[in-house]
Amino acid sequence: MKRSVTVLGATGSVGGATVDLLLRHADRFEVEAVAGGSDARALAEVAVRLKARRAVIADETQGEALARALELTGVRSAAGARAMTEAASIPVDWTMAAISGAAGLAPTVAAVRRGGAVALATKECLVCAGQAFMAEVARAGATLLPVDSEHNALMQALGGQSVAEVETMTLTASGGPFRDWSAERIAAARPEDALRHPTWTMGAKITIDSATLMNKGLELIEAHHLFAIDPTRLDVVVHPQSVIHGLVAFKDGAVTAGLASPDMRVPIAHTLGFPDRLSTPAARLDFAAIGRLTFEAPDMGRFPALGLARAALAAGGAAPTVLNAANEVAVALFLARRIGFMDVPRIVEETLEIAAGRPFGAPGTVEAALALDAEARRLAAERLPEAHFRAH
Amino acid sequence: MKRSVTVLGATGSVGGATVDLLLRHADRFEVEAVAGGSDARALAEVAVRLKARRAVIADETQGEALARALELTGVRSAAGARAMTEAASIPVDWTMAAISGAAGLAPTVAAVRRGGAVALATKECLVCAGQAFMAEVARAGATLLPVDSEHNALMQALGGQSVAEVETMTLTASGGPFRDWSAERIAAARPEDALRHPTWTMGAKITIDSATLMNKGLELIEAHHLFAIDPTRLDVVVHPQSVIHGLVAFKDGAVTAGLASPDMRVPIAHTLGFPDRLSTPAARLDFAAIGRLTFEAPDMGRFPALGLARAALAAGGAAPTVLNAANEVAVALFLARRIGFMDVPRIVEETLEIAAGRPFGAPGTVEAALALDAEARRLAAERLPEAHFRAH
Repeated sequence: MKRSVTVLGATGSVGGATVDLLLRHADRFEVEAVAGGSDARALAEVAVRLKARRAVIADETQGEALARALELTGVRSAAGARAMTEAASIPVDWTMAAISGAAGLAPTVAAVRRGGAVALATKECLVCAGQAFMAEVARAGATLLPVDSEHNALMQALGGQSVAEVETMTLTASGGPFRDWSAERIAAARPEDALRHPTWTMGAKITIDSATLMNKGLELIEAHHLFAIDPTRLDVVVHPQSVIHGLVAFKDGAVTAGLASPDMRVPIAHTLGFPDRLSTPAARLDFAAIGRLTFEAPDMGRFPALGLARAALAAGGAAPTVLNAANEVAVALFLARRIGFMDVPRIVEETLEIAAGRPFGAPGTVEAALALDAEARRLAAERLPEAHFRAH
Repeated sequence: MKRSVTVLGATGSVGGATVDLLLRHADRFEVEAVAGGSDARALAEVAVRLKARRAVIADETQGEALARALELTGVRSAAGARAMTEAASIPVDWTMAAISGAAGLAPTVAAVRRGGAVALATKECLVCAGQAFMAEVARAGATLLPVDSEHNALMQALGGQSVAEVETMTLTASGGPFRDWSAERIAAARPEDALRHPTWTMGAKITIDSATLMNKGLELIEAHHLFAIDPTRLDVVVHPQSVIHGLVAFKDGAVTAGLASPDMRVPIAHTLGFPDRLSTPAARLDFAAIGRLTFEAPDMGRFPALGLARAALAAGGAAPTVLNAANEVAVALFLARRIGFMDVPRIVEETLEIAAGRPFGAPGTVEAALALDAEARRLAAERLPEAHFRAH
């Protein structure tokens, strides 16, 4: 029997890799719905190739273009945020949740509420609304399968064992483009310096997060929620080759590690086939050819964002949501050349300090998390005049 | 409820590490029997410390010494091979099978026939009688838990998944003391050169096997039987730091790895606690402190033993048993300074060639494997006059 699947975020990079796998294993899957942001042409093409029952575009102004493109194909079309959440609510065996940003939250929650397996590529669910989101997962009895290479590697290394048997979980970090830069040089870094990531080709936001190491901090927050592991048991090691993605150390001293070449089809295939495996054409790791893997402790002095994230995770409550919101604002300002590179962690830190003085608590619902996120963005943006003044 | 255990080979190095773990977790285990080779004093001490019900010594001449030492302790004593096998046949939840050499075969088979979990540290069962031994395991429905660090790492990396999902399993090799020696220098190597193993402190036989890389070849044969994996899917990579012990590559391109510091308590604890985990005081891996892990392809030219083992495994039938027997004879001759280092693989190769011309088949029973083993030892010993002539 074929497994039914829905792909939310079908026109993005994770969505594209998912589509590639579904086409390679077309005999094993039937596609209920594909959903995309605003590219009607690309979404229609994906829907037709996958023989999807329906296609939904988030941008309502593109609804007509999508409908026209699918007119003679038999694929039903719809548009808008509500149609997206409706499509996500249709019962399927597996959903890819790969809509980035706050827009991904509602449809991902809808998919979770339906139960079944949800492959999670949307960071926001866990970094902005972790506690509330995991409560939804538990309530629905959904199976959450992390797509992010680090968390997927940790899941594979854990291999179904209880977290009670785990001493530490370690995420590896490439160290980003500034790994061996001096503090002075980092302070003067421009967006174009950061946008040359050593291993992965990614979006601008996540690439800056990789340069500040905030990316790894956000992943610690995600890991905490995904695996219900205490923050004190989570660690980061810099591993520039990005071959090992995650390490699980058990209480007997044994360590298992998850490794893969930098091809998103590997973790996606793991979630799509789970608990079985699906073949992929991803490049195989050849250890003799790789030759060496190196490791170093992250430098919290040059990369304060990682320390801020650890502190926010330890503090709990509103802090992780505030950290993520403030970081989004600060990165956007840095990309717009309105602040310097080290103003990013400064804005995050100051926003966290201000938020700590407000009566914010841990958001108990996804809606409360979104409201807190908006409030934190406002607080972060208020840091701008001063940031601008200090900017290089 | 306490789990009942028996330790075969309680006075050896694996046995000692097992005793250490049992003492640390005395509240969770009750010891049915401990068995040792010929050191009555050491065995009696272990039996008393573990509050074992009985102690059995293989060497009958030491039976009286054991009985005397245990006279007032309440521990029953027995001596001889038959008593050993009887003790191994007493139903327990878990048996450590750590009697080295051919002497370990009968009691290990007895433990397997009883069903339950058997932690296997006795190489001979698989390299000499693999097919017959695994048939015994299947018949009894026993759970075989590999203790050898490489196979234990592979088991942990496999994590209960089906071998049908596996593309390759890779064992790491330290490369031994001659890893970066020239062929000329290796040819002139003396026993004392080989007995300085870079990572582990082991017995003389296994240390020479580590220097020739035959050790890794024998482990490939073990892995083939343990995991029912095709020889073509087994690989070896040289990894001098011996931090990663085994790598499992799945058909989706993901790889999981098993790692540990060089402390036998780590794999033993895994088998003793399985499927749960037992805490151990083994040194924890610190990747930033380790700094780097390196990998290189094994050099089949300088280390022909590995190629011989691979060929014997591929040929199947009598070849693996003959390879192991010939290697034991050749290593003993090298340790006795009667042949040169490169005569070891030469004797193995010549014995395999001669055996290929005889009507030997795959031994269908453990007894047949032992008979073939004895015959192969004779054939290998016949290679000696010539070997002696060529020796350096």
